[in-house]
Amino acid sequence: MIRLNSNYDKLESNYLFVEIARRVNKHREGNSKSKLISLGIGDVTKPLASTVIKAFHQGVDEQANEDTFKGYGPYQGYSFLQAAIVKTDYHEHGCDCIDAPDIFVSDGAKCDTGNFQELFASDIKVALPDPVYPVYTDTNVMAGRTGFAQNGRYQGLIYLEGNENNGFVPSPRELENNPADLVYLCFPNNPTGATASREQLGDWIQWALSQGAIILYDSAYEAFITDPDIPRSIYEIPGAEKCAVEFRSFSKTAGFTGVRCAYTVVPSAIEIGGTKLQDMWNRRHSTKFNGVSYPVQMAAAATYSTEGKKEIRENINYYLANAQIITDAMSSLGYQYWGGLNSPYVWVKTNEDSWLTFDRILEGADVVISPGSGFGKMGRGYIRISAFNSMENVREALERIVDLLSK
Amino acid sequence: MIRLNSNYDKLESNYLFVEIARRVNKHREGNSKSKLISLGIGDVTKPLASTVIKAFHQGVDEQANEDTFKGYGPYQGYSFLQAAIVKTDYHEHGCDCIDAPDIFVSDGAKCDTGNFQELFASDIKVALPDPVYPVYTDTNVMAGRTGFAQNGRYQGLIYLEGNENNGFVPSPRELENNPADLVYLCFPNNPTGATASREQLGDWIQWALSQGAIILYDSAYEAFITDPDIPRSIYEIPGAEKCAVEFRSFSKTAGFTGVRCAYTVVPSAIEIGGTKLQDMWNRRHSTKFNGVSYPVQMAAAATYSTEGKKEIRENINYYLANAQIITDAMSSLGYQYWGGLNSPYVWVKTNEDSWLTFDRILEGADVVISPGSGFGKMGRGYIRISAFNSMENVREALERIVDLLSK
Repeated sequence: MIRLNSNYDKLESNYLFVEIARRVNKHREGNSKSKLISLGIGDVTKPLASTVIKAFHQGVDEQANEDTFKGYGPYQGYSFLQAAIVKTDYHEHGCDCIDAPDIFVSDGAKCDTGNFQELFASDIKVALPDPVYPVYTDTNVMAGRTGFAQNGRYQGLIYLEGNENNGFVPSPRELENNPADLVYLCFPNNPTGATASREQLGDWIQWALSQGAIILYDSAYEAFITDPDIPRSIYEIPGAEKCAVEFRSFSKTAGFTGVRCAYTVVPSAIEIGGTKLQDMWNRRHSTKFNGVSYPVQMAAAATYSTEGKKEIRENINYYLANAQIITDAMSSLGYQYWGGLNSPYVWVKTNEDSWLTFDRILEGADVVISPGSGFGKMGRGYIRISAFNSMENVREALERIVDLLSK
Repeated sequence: MIRLNSNYDKLESNYLFVEIARRVNKHREGNSKSKLISLGIGDVTKPLASTVIKAFHQGVDEQANEDTFKGYGPYQGYSFLQAAIVKTDYHEHGCDCIDAPDIFVSDGAKCDTGNFQELFASDIKVALPDPVYPVYTDTNVMAGRTGFAQNGRYQGLIYLEGNENNGFVPSPRELENNPADLVYLCFPNNPTGATASREQLGDWIQWALSQGAIILYDSAYEAFITDPDIPRSIYEIPGAEKCAVEFRSFSKTAGFTGVRCAYTVVPSAIEIGGTKLQDMWNRRHSTKFNGVSYPVQMAAAATYSTEGKKEIRENINYYLANAQIITDAMSSLGYQYWGGLNSPYVWVKTNEDSWLTFDRILEGADVVISPGSGFGKMGRGYIRISAFNSMENVREALERIVDLLSK
């Protein structure tokens, strides 16, 4: 008689966004005529840039012709895309330590941040932020690195608490008496919108190098950074190429949530016990994955053209203007908030049960937000509002929320 | 100090097709002017059908417009694609037990067959065919279900031997004294091209039901079956919906190797210890995956239109005619072979070390084939020749091989 992976029994509840969808569907059943506005899941709404569309079509056309048809592509991604990534995202930002063989193109940063833990021993110590993107936690639970949850926290994991005092940027000093082997960091942060300074990231790299630890750095939202003093890549910090893996995505940068393209940087300088981590990921990637759709890679590469960069910057600025509308509304309500600047997310302190606020705003304003508690214990009493929607919808949603909450 | 997943140390060598590429690249360095023909990796060469191209373009155009733009899609795939799959691939073949919620659309059968084992306990007994698609084996090694390899076989795995006597269709009788919990089967088989009869598959289903075992059934090549007596789906066998998961792909059926779309069927009737396997896969899928590119799903759905079906059938028949050229050539050489009928692969007995034959054909005929030993111990002394190439190339390649081997 076959037996199941019992670690799944430990998973607390539905994946957050599945639970949000469930509540929204239930609400819609009784309110099918009202106009629901979603500032919840953090999904882009602006169409793809015209330069991207053009390249995407070209990629499809090549698949129509025997002479240009592409079957299986290189496991790591086409070299034209790797080269564009290295030049624009790294070399032009002074990260000369990164080269094409370090780039692994994939179909999503969610997949990569979820899968990367497979490369490590099952009994390593994992530290992750709280609040946190649930994928980091859930994939470690599935892999058996935790016990059951108690009071919203899995036994065996180390939680790096984000709070008002540290501005939701945990420090490695929290690990002084409780050392970790693998640390997940995400800046600009999902869900809090917090960014980390050069000095704060420098502390983390120094700590990792001294401990022989690895940092998994999720910078899926780096395109939203406008402040030149805030690092966009972990490789702007000297030594990071020896201890940090970086995850990037075209989803939020270029509106690719429905198109699916991302990449992971595994520098060749990372060695663990004489083994190159890059070789391990390459083995995993080529055994369990078969590359990204060729037309999609063509579309992704177009985001690096002169015109593509300009169009994408306009979209990012549009969402950042939405974020400003949200923070203005929160200010008018007298709520304390984080993010919204250098980030598409606004993290709001509401001082009540997050799902209660979620249900209240859903029922009373017909607006979907994300409950802070869905991101961890430290998210209780907070909500996340996303700037991804049309400006018209963001304005209307915030007017409704202000009306509702100022009553 | 962090430690790596030591199971990777057990992996014998490079993933087969990576090793083939390495040898081919080395050969090319000294022979850059000759015309190399690949009948190796099993990659399609015919361009996408025009109906598919049209739908693909339409999907891209929808991403260019705010009103039709699609962000994150449903984790399981769009309902229009699920519905087309259920109707055409199952209900029209009498498999009424399969319904839309059983269908999980993904970016590749390689990913799905590699990932599915995660749902089971780490100490279950796994049985897999020999010869076999290396992904089944390697992903179980990575997951820690084996010891090190000895003489080409991993300790802890059960090998179901395919040979001349059983026509490369192993029977569950091989497991009488060595029961397994999870069995991988693949028909039409990769690499041998063998197909299983209704009776042979019936034996497997009866065995799985009596043992409480699960069968992972890879039918990525079902479109090549022309004999009406050979089952195309495992669900044509009564009871399979209680014990079998089926993997399908658009890669070989519709030339999607560079486009990336596949699906996995997890029937709701499969329960293990009171848990629905479908719920487990749904949890895994929604936690570690974010859906398939929308334009790609549009393209995949077009393969089910009347015109699409016709165009795809023409391509399949083209490759089957290539297979005939290969089997004719092997007959003329007096070699024994399997497959080529109801399959794009021809499995040839050469009675010498497979890599030696591989190198001999590469050097002497400028043709890439696959060494049988790359698929397991029982593949030693065999080679796999793929029918995926232009008819002109297949003809030329086989002429060169016949010239070389008849000397």
